[in-house]
Amino acid sequence: MKRISILGSTGSIGTQTLDIAAFHPERFRVEALAAGTNVDLLAEQANRFRPRLVSVATKELADKLTGMIPEGIRVLYGDEGVREVAAGNDADVVVSAMVGSAGCEPTLAAIDAGKAIALANKETLVAAGAVVTARARRRGVPLIPVDSEHSAIFQSLNGSRIDDVLALTLTASGGSFRDRGRDELADVTVADALKHPNWSMGAKVTIDSATMANKGLEVIEARWLFDVDYDRIRVLVHPESIIHSYVEFYDKSIIAQLGQPDMRVPIQYALTFPDRPLSPASSLDLAALGKLTFRPMDFERYPMIRLAYEAGRAGGTATAVFNAANEIAVARFLAEDIPFQRIESIVESTLAKHDVVAATDLGAIREADAWARDVAKSC
Amino acid sequence: MKRISILGSTGSIGTQTLDIAAFHPERFRVEALAAGTNVDLLAEQANRFRPRLVSVATKELADKLTGMIPEGIRVLYGDEGVREVAAGNDADVVVSAMVGSAGCEPTLAAIDAGKAIALANKETLVAAGAVVTARARRRGVPLIPVDSEHSAIFQSLNGSRIDDVLALTLTASGGSFRDRGRDELADVTVADALKHPNWSMGAKVTIDSATMANKGLEVIEARWLFDVDYDRIRVLVHPESIIHSYVEFYDKSIIAQLGQPDMRVPIQYALTFPDRPLSPASSLDLAALGKLTFRPMDFERYPMIRLAYEAGRAGGTATAVFNAANEIAVARFLAEDIPFQRIESIVESTLAKHDVVAATDLGAIREADAWARDVAKSC
Repeated sequence: MKRISILGSTGSIGTQTLDIAAFHPERFRVEALAAGTNVDLLAEQANRFRPRLVSVATKELADKLTGMIPEGIRVLYGDEGVREVAAGNDADVVVSAMVGSAGCEPTLAAIDAGKAIALANKETLVAAGAVVTARARRRGVPLIPVDSEHSAIFQSLNGSRIDDVLALTLTASGGSFRDRGRDELADVTVADALKHPNWSMGAKVTIDSATMANKGLEVIEARWLFDVDYDRIRVLVHPESIIHSYVEFYDKSIIAQLGQPDMRVPIQYALTFPDRPLSPASSLDLAALGKLTFRPMDFERYPMIRLAYEAGRAGGTATAVFNAANEIAVARFLAEDIPFQRIESIVESTLAKHDVVAATDLGAIREADAWARDVAKSC
Repeated sequence: MKRISILGSTGSIGTQTLDIAAFHPERFRVEALAAGTNVDLLAEQANRFRPRLVSVATKELADKLTGMIPEGIRVLYGDEGVREVAAGNDADVVVSAMVGSAGCEPTLAAIDAGKAIALANKETLVAAGAVVTARARRRGVPLIPVDSEHSAIFQSLNGSRIDDVLALTLTASGGSFRDRGRDELADVTVADALKHPNWSMGAKVTIDSATMANKGLEVIEARWLFDVDYDRIRVLVHPESIIHSYVEFYDKSIIAQLGQPDMRVPIQYALTFPDRPLSPASSLDLAALGKLTFRPMDFERYPMIRLAYEAGRAGGTATAVFNAANEIAVARFLAEDIPFQRIESIVESTLAKHDVVAATDLGAIREADAWARDVAKSC
């Protein structure tokens, strides 16, 4: 019986993690759940899975939640609540699925508490990859990817030596606007941007797919998860999202992971690895599909992927700034404060203004993150 | 330094194995080479690689060869010569690359001598899978596949538990006549049939690709190599031969092996596994390729694949009969003794006449093989 704790239980990854827990009641016990403001859904989850501990954003929400769930479930809130769900309970594995850089500190707390990490929060590695991976190594804690692309790489490697790898290739669907040129993006709406062609995901990551910032974050995440330099990380546009990513070895053999676009597969794998029990996903039928298509990534069409590589190669606090500026810019777009393409120019100009420093401690990262948010808000 | 012996050194797999040995002189030493009648090429190989032992088909050829190679290289011939190349020298690994069921007994001799087997001779497992795999298990000898499809499965499994596998899928290019219907096959010539669209291979296997007998043999081989029943082995037409085969696990995740159609990759992997040093093959560029296509296997269009499954499920000596009848029929087609589609009807009628018995000893298999050859010759 594996004991699970979920940071971000009411989000897209969180709810699908609970689907997997429900699908394998003999394998999993849900210990703790942390959510933000969606009290109704958290109450439903708490009634169904009977965790020992739940947490929400504020005291007010916690008080409301208390009346909606069975007695005996501990209810916390705020930073302390998140920290307790991450580190203060008997979970074996913590699913880190909060959105944005807020996921970083609780993930570190879980690492310090010796929990295995199923990592869906990519900003943790983007902002603080050096700190987080060093700490996980020191603590002997595995960081198992949940993102479909990184899970695909992890599954394709399956223990192979990273020294034998010529390149990792992350595939990209191209997002909501893949069939539009740059001159057709000026007037796109939030509703347009939220229509992802293949994956059902949260708003932030769907916008990040449309700008290709998401693939940029994944490139940086891959650098830390698999300890490879940027020259060995590539991106390929693959509109069908069937090949989720692949590894090319020095012998020119490629190992790829394929499947229906269904996040429950990588989520389950992160929790059951190396076992592969039945999942609720459906089988991929390549004959019925007929074909898979590919095209090169266009760095002019998608400046965010170029900026991500540039930030990654600059190193230090640059990736934290890339991420923070992007978070603010996406929030401003979702609030209809700026047009779609301003997301790109905000990130580019924030990075241009930043003086990169080493990112070997959280203090420097926090400072760069806060600075970037201020700049991006006023751009 | 790995010491290699090659059964069938002048054939397609044999020469490409020597390409790999030459590409990694620091890794490999060629101990022994067995060929059939191509004395000129064998002499060239012996002069280049300086094995301790070579063997040819007959005493006459051996005498001729002796004058063409350095003194001190032992020259043998016939069955005894093949046996010595298989088992009577210091090789660590024997590449079993003779064509047809003649490869069976020397492969068994190599297994009994405790050699690791790089298996390119599929007829060994098709005719005598139960005997060969039982003996390899008992002797603790690995059977590493060289065929691109089985190597792809082996690489995709990479140590995963076979119990977690929902299905293995072998891909098939469709062969030389994949764009013709059955009604367009009556008058095809040997030269037409030898034009394989993707792979450069020997004549027998190229004809077997055109009839789909090759995929049938591979299905049976997969059953023994990976110890799965026929219900878990599937075939898929994939004209580009880029996805060489794949594994679907119970969680609906698929792991596939891809690459340019270049036999040197699976050959090298069989010799260097689990290492993946540089190979002479070129990288696959999916963006340049643009697309991969798939269509269901048509069991009406390709009766040989149906017959292979039927023989496999019948078990016992049926697969040896399938193979032997096919060898004779292909030889008769190559000799322009019969038209192309008679290959299928000869195999079908030979199988129909056969009384299946258990194939737990080589005697029964040899008897069925000889019987099938007689029947197929006079069909």
